[in-house]
Amino acid sequence: MDQQQLFAKMGLAGWNTQIAHAEKVFNAFTDEQFYTVVAPGKNRIIYLYGHLAAYHDALKETLGLGKASQPELYEVFLKNADNDKAEFPSLAELKNFWQSVHAELNELFVNLPATEWFKRHNAMTDEDFEKDPSRNRLSVLLSRANHVAYHIGQVNLVKPLVA
Amino acid sequence: MDQQQLFAKMGLAGWNTQIAHAEKVFNAFTDEQFYTVVAPGKNRIIYLYGHLAAYHDALKETLGLGKASQPELYEVFLKNADNDKAEFPSLAELKNFWQSVHAELNELFVNLPATEWFKRHNAMTDEDFEKDPSRNRLSVLLSRANHVAYHIGQVNLVKPLVA
Repeated sequence: MDQQQLFAKMGLAGWNTQIAHAEKVFNAFTDEQFYTVVAPGKNRIIYLYGHLAAYHDALKETLGLGKASQPELYEVFLKNADNDKAEFPSLAELKNFWQSVHAELNELFVNLPATEWFKRHNAMTDEDFEKDPSRNRLSVLLSRANHVAYHIGQVNLVKPLVA
Repeated sequence: MDQQQLFAKMGLAGWNTQIAHAEKVFNAFTDEQFYTVVAPGKNRIIYLYGHLAAYHDALKETLGLGKASQPELYEVFLKNADNDKAEFPSLAELKNFWQSVHAELNELFVNLPATEWFKRHNAMTDEDFEKDPSRNRLSVLLSRANHVAYHIGQVNLVKPLVA
């Protein structure tokens, strides 16, 4: 294993840990619980579920590895906070969306040669990347793993009911 | 910059981002607010503050880079959840503790040669490390950065009062 493969493995391991944890946490809730807030006046679980799925749908484009499959969800889950008037897809639709986004990312990631992780991502110019090659695709993945952890800390405040 | 230096820089950048964010979030609270819970029945802010500081104090030992300065705090902040009977140091003492732990880590980290980040940490045997060299010091740092994000997501549910 060369150095780039080693580091790609480390970054992916961290990402996979966070996604597996998120799935375990979300999947423990009853359908009704998805509509409860994580704390008084704060986001509902379903919003955070859609927020992470939509953000990861967008991640394909940020990494320059694919197209978002449901960019129409950015409006409700990325551009706006949770609110009473928000119209979400059904929970069943969101569960399919989550599953397909993460399956697609997994497929892309396991097949990506390690060298590709160290190339620039689409939110950077060539000049900026030349100045700072640490801001590569893998650094985006590390940052997204932190973002998952941030919200799972919130969702985990709600104790799952036995279905 | 060689590959190891590049990876170490990426890992440290993620860690530093999380610590800076944590400090910004905690420092926005009034002293009284530190004693409020992040959600009904959940940890108080001061517990999570002490939890992160004590965990990072222990990080020096996990990485094999130094000794914990206040291991007596493990009992209240790592081995036990927050509770009514918990006896915490004063907030002023905890603020000093946080500051000194992170200043010491920063000093250790900026002076650590990149090659050292890819050696095994103290929670692993030589044999295990030979089987999986991705479980190195830097992977611990990546995991700790996720842990900071997890709890800051919770603390951030409390809106700071203007002091």
